[in-house]
Amino acid sequence: MSVIYDRVALIGLGLIASSLAHAMRRGGLAGEIVGTARSAETRAIATEIGFCDRVVDTAAEAVNGADLVVIATPIGVMHQVAAEIGPHLAPGATVTDVGSVKRAVIAAVEPHLPKGVHFIPGHPLAGTEHSGPRSGFAELFEGRWCILVPGEDTDPDALARLRALWEAMGSNVDVMDPDHHDLVVAVTSHAPHLIAYTMVGVADDLRRVTDSEVIKYSAGGFRDFTRIAASDPTMWRDVFLTNKDATLEILGRFTEELFALQRAIRTGDGDHLHHYFTRTRAIRRGIVEAGQDTDAPDFGRVGRKT
Amino acid sequence: MSVIYDRVALIGLGLIASSLAHAMRRGGLAGEIVGTARSAETRAIATEIGFCDRVVDTAAEAVNGADLVVIATPIGVMHQVAAEIGPHLAPGATVTDVGSVKRAVIAAVEPHLPKGVHFIPGHPLAGTEHSGPRSGFAELFEGRWCILVPGEDTDPDALARLRALWEAMGSNVDVMDPDHHDLVVAVTSHAPHLIAYTMVGVADDLRRVTDSEVIKYSAGGFRDFTRIAASDPTMWRDVFLTNKDATLEILGRFTEELFALQRAIRTGDGDHLHHYFTRTRAIRRGIVEAGQDTDAPDFGRVGRKT
Repeated sequence: MSVIYDRVALIGLGLIASSLAHAMRRGGLAGEIVGTARSAETRAIATEIGFCDRVVDTAAEAVNGADLVVIATPIGVMHQVAAEIGPHLAPGATVTDVGSVKRAVIAAVEPHLPKGVHFIPGHPLAGTEHSGPRSGFAELFEGRWCILVPGEDTDPDALARLRALWEAMGSNVDVMDPDHHDLVVAVTSHAPHLIAYTMVGVADDLRRVTDSEVIKYSAGGFRDFTRIAASDPTMWRDVFLTNKDATLEILGRFTEELFALQRAIRTGDGDHLHHYFTRTRAIRRGIVEAGQDTDAPDFGRVGRKT
Repeated sequence: MSVIYDRVALIGLGLIASSLAHAMRRGGLAGEIVGTARSAETRAIATEIGFCDRVVDTAAEAVNGADLVVIATPIGVMHQVAAEIGPHLAPGATVTDVGSVKRAVIAAVEPHLPKGVHFIPGHPLAGTEHSGPRSGFAELFEGRWCILVPGEDTDPDALARLRALWEAMGSNVDVMDPDHHDLVVAVTSHAPHLIAYTMVGVADDLRRVTDSEVIKYSAGGFRDFTRIAASDPTMWRDVFLTNKDATLEILGRFTEELFALQRAIRTGDGDHLHHYFTRTRAIRRGIVEAGQDTDAPDFGRVGRKT
């Protein structure tokens, strides 16, 4: 592999940025990696781990001379980051982000960027339930999708270069317009997360079942919800506040379907339930075939140590 | 290990019964294992794999001389099974089941059993999204909980012996009354399954997002729902029809909470969302600490091959 960007600035040093740094290091994809984070503690941890060549105190300093700037903060502060770095960006630099919502990020960031800078929003569909600078690892993006959301007048060479970086880290890359992106992730990620958070909250609230019972007996299905619901609270707050319309649309459809199934339970309509449950198996098979999961019987995963 | 039951009859030869057979074989816990299933194809597969010492055509024949009878069919047919085996049970035999609901199973089975037979309903909280006689494996119950639901006048020796069998297969055993059992599993298993089925159904229905997009981008959270929603449709239909009250109660609470979170999204109440999402992390930590899951970052599991 060879260097794709001479100097990469990472703003925010959580799971995604630290994984980017590890992956770029492994592949020799960046001449120099400069990182910054708002929190002094995060900067200290990043310095200690050493996944950046330099850790600096401000975003303005980090972007100095960088030909790629990755905004990897929570979405809610991206407008401040953009306002801070705008005057310091090198002409011809590419600015991207890794936020889970694209329409709102474009609205927050684009107005602050000078002419001559290439803004290509991005969203790697990869993550774990862990967060922070210690949680990153080089393999995070392997076999995962990264969606890039260029504008109509985005420079094709700048897009090709950013795509090459993601591919060199093991990602598949798709290009999409921001509204479609926001709807797709509302279905595949945002609504499932809100639902998982809700179910875990209900279990926690229920007085007649203790938390320790919920925890002991979680292998029956609940466990998979807690895994999702353990994700970073700040990131997810910002996701829901900024992808409001698409998320609420999907949740509306979800509630409608859930009510129909509840009615089938109440009236004892077994055929309706059986038909519904049979249909969902096909989607599961599709996901296994597409390589987005394995076919291993994961419900028993602790016992099997696979 | 030594033989705990001289002859075990397995009625129904799906995931749970075949795993029981493998686990009992491994531990030398049963003198003889006799199996039966309604479907000739299932009996043929079980014979081919050879996890039973004998596979017979009828439940009446299977229970002949057995000191342990395990009803491992869908809940919806347990009353028929009980009616068929009742007259053929050996005096002093223990009858148990592995159904996910206990109040309804007791109502279906108990009236058909003769005096002198020990009926101790049971529920191993273990399973995978696979089903059928080929899906069983000896380790399924290791480190998992099995809930036994004896009656007030259950013979203590019969209970101790059944408990010893589950423990010898690697399970932890708890004793509970049927109503509390049905509520606990409504929270930890039944409601999560219905919710997962619903979300997968919504994704499948949405015209503006294709199935292939849902499948490609499932790593963002949706994937964990499809895993749950791929479980056996007949078993789950019967679960919801027979644990109606507890499931509907939990779903009612769930809908209430989901509406509150939707309102927070609509009104932009970030504090409410952040507080809610922070609370759920503690439950996740409890589950990891209780050994019901690992701390490995599983969202990236395909890329990491862990």
